[in-house]
Amino acid sequence: MDISVIKERVRYGETDQMGVAYHGAYSQWFEIGRTEFCKMKGVVYKELERSGYGLVVVELFINYKRPLRYDEEFEIHTYVEEINKKMIKFGYRIIKDSKICATGYTKHLFILLSSFKSTDAPEEVINCFLNK
Amino acid sequence: MDISVIKERVRYGETDQMGVAYHGAYSQWFEIGRTEFCKMKGVVYKELERSGYGLVVVELFINYKRPLRYDEEFEIHTYVEEINKKMIKFGYRIIKDSKICATGYTKHLFILLSSFKSTDAPEEVINCFLNK
Amino acid sequence: MDISVIKERVRYGETDQMGVAYHGAYSQWFEIGRTEFCKMKGVVYKELERSGYGLVVVELFINYKRPLRYDEEFEIHTYVEEINKKMIKFGYRIIKDSKICATGYTKHLFILLSSFKSTDAPEEVINCFLNK
Amino acid sequence: MDISVIKERVRYGETDQMGVAYHGAYSQWFEIGRTEFCKMKGVVYKELERSGYGLVVVELFINYKRPLRYDEEFEIHTYVEEINKKMIKFGYRIIKDSKICATGYTKHLFILLSSFKSTDAPEEVINCFLNK
Repeated sequence: MDISVIKERVRYGETDQMGVAYHGAYSQWFEIGRTEFCKMKGVVYKELERSGYGLVVVELFINYKRPLRYDEEFEIHTYVEEINKKMIKFGYRIIKDSKICATGYTKHLFILLSSFKSTDAPEEVINCFLNK
Repeated sequence: MDISVIKERVRYGETDQMGVAYHGAYSQWFEIGRTEFCKMKGVVYKELERSGYGLVVVELFINYKRPLRYDEEFEIHTYVEEINKKMIKFGYRIIKDSKICATGYTKHLFILLSSFKSTDAPEEVINCFLNK
Repeated sequence: MDISVIKERVRYGETDQMGVAYHGAYSQWFEIGRTEFCKMKGVVYKELERSGYGLVVVELFINYKRPLRYDEEFEIHTYVEEINKKMIKFGYRIIKDSKICATGYTKHLFILLSSFKSTDAPEEVINCFLNK
Repeated sequence: MDISVIKERVRYGETDQMGVAYHGAYSQWFEIGRTEFCKMKGVVYKELERSGYGLVVVELFINYKRPLRYDEEFEIHTYVEEINKKMIKFGYRIIKDSKICATGYTKHLFILLSSFKSTDAPEEVINCFLNK
């Protein structure tokens, strides 16, 4: 299984008054991981949008295990859990010092940006994800 | 089942380049719903924190059904799906013009803010949620 | 001078680990004020964009006087400080319990969304702002 | 003059429906620059907070010159414009491909976190910033 890894740091603005990273920040981190994973596979998301396709989020799940604090560095691990012509499901792990801080997934539909309707992904995009 | 309802509008900064509300914004909307629900039940969250307790998010799930756009008004419906001494699970519905745009839940543990360890909730807090 | 007033509450996700509203949140509040002011004047910003125009921010200034905390309600006062065919400058006051918590302004250029180039605003838009 | 440089990329969630980075995102980028500058000088901000001091933002100014788009990489340049026992003013430049996209500053007061009152900074902190 291919996994992309990218490092980030908790921004001050991402903390909340509990003194830890706000739970809402993780969905942005997942997205950074997704962008990185796509690049690793040769799928540049902004070019996908330029050619009229979008990958719209239909499900988000996050399981929070250990809090992260301001300025702590962590890794975002991203991989594909499931893929077919219509949809792709990414899995994520947020890791600090070899310990899992959070896991989760996002499920996406391929859509036409013009209509926001579900569509089949371009074959070359699916092939990129499948290493064909 | 008790449900709190509060109205919000999509902020410009909550849109993304797809022209719709960014999927990451919904977790903040759920939180607004949660704050409202707690108030309805007489549990003021900031006072809970002042007395040393926190309600830390351990799970977040969102199912996105219809996109929302800038300046559209929507309702956040919030209710309790499950509760015991250790944890509470809130359910949410994001509704616009009587149509469900998203559903989801968050699962929380009661913790002591001093140690970030799981603890039993104060009995009066549980009683408030249970209408006792 | 016409001033629009809209009420908001500090969201939990807008606090930071200092226990107060994060300074970066205020620019979103200014924008809520701006949206409200435009509506009061009959200028619906989303329709402006639909007809091909944008109001792009070129300057932002904020002066923070008193911190705001989670769940505190405040008012956003918005007015026009300066306007001509090319640009508009909005002034803002964030007020809680009759006390000023922050002041600031944003300066905007009218642009064509197709080219992102500066342009003259549609005359009827300027007239709306000037009460003509 | 000492300048710290750190690279970042525009996150998808930082774009808005105009298709460019939302103007409100820049204040977070300035903060990333500030964190980096402090580290370069040996002032670890989280330790400053741990010892009871805070650096509260009292003024923010941003001048936007060129838009940035999703996934574009840019540099955040940070330097000290002014400093004394009571306050510090940081200057910033957001640069992409050697072109300035935005400039700005933030002005901060040293405060005691316990009271949120203005105070003199610890001498060793000022000395770090002044390279003494």
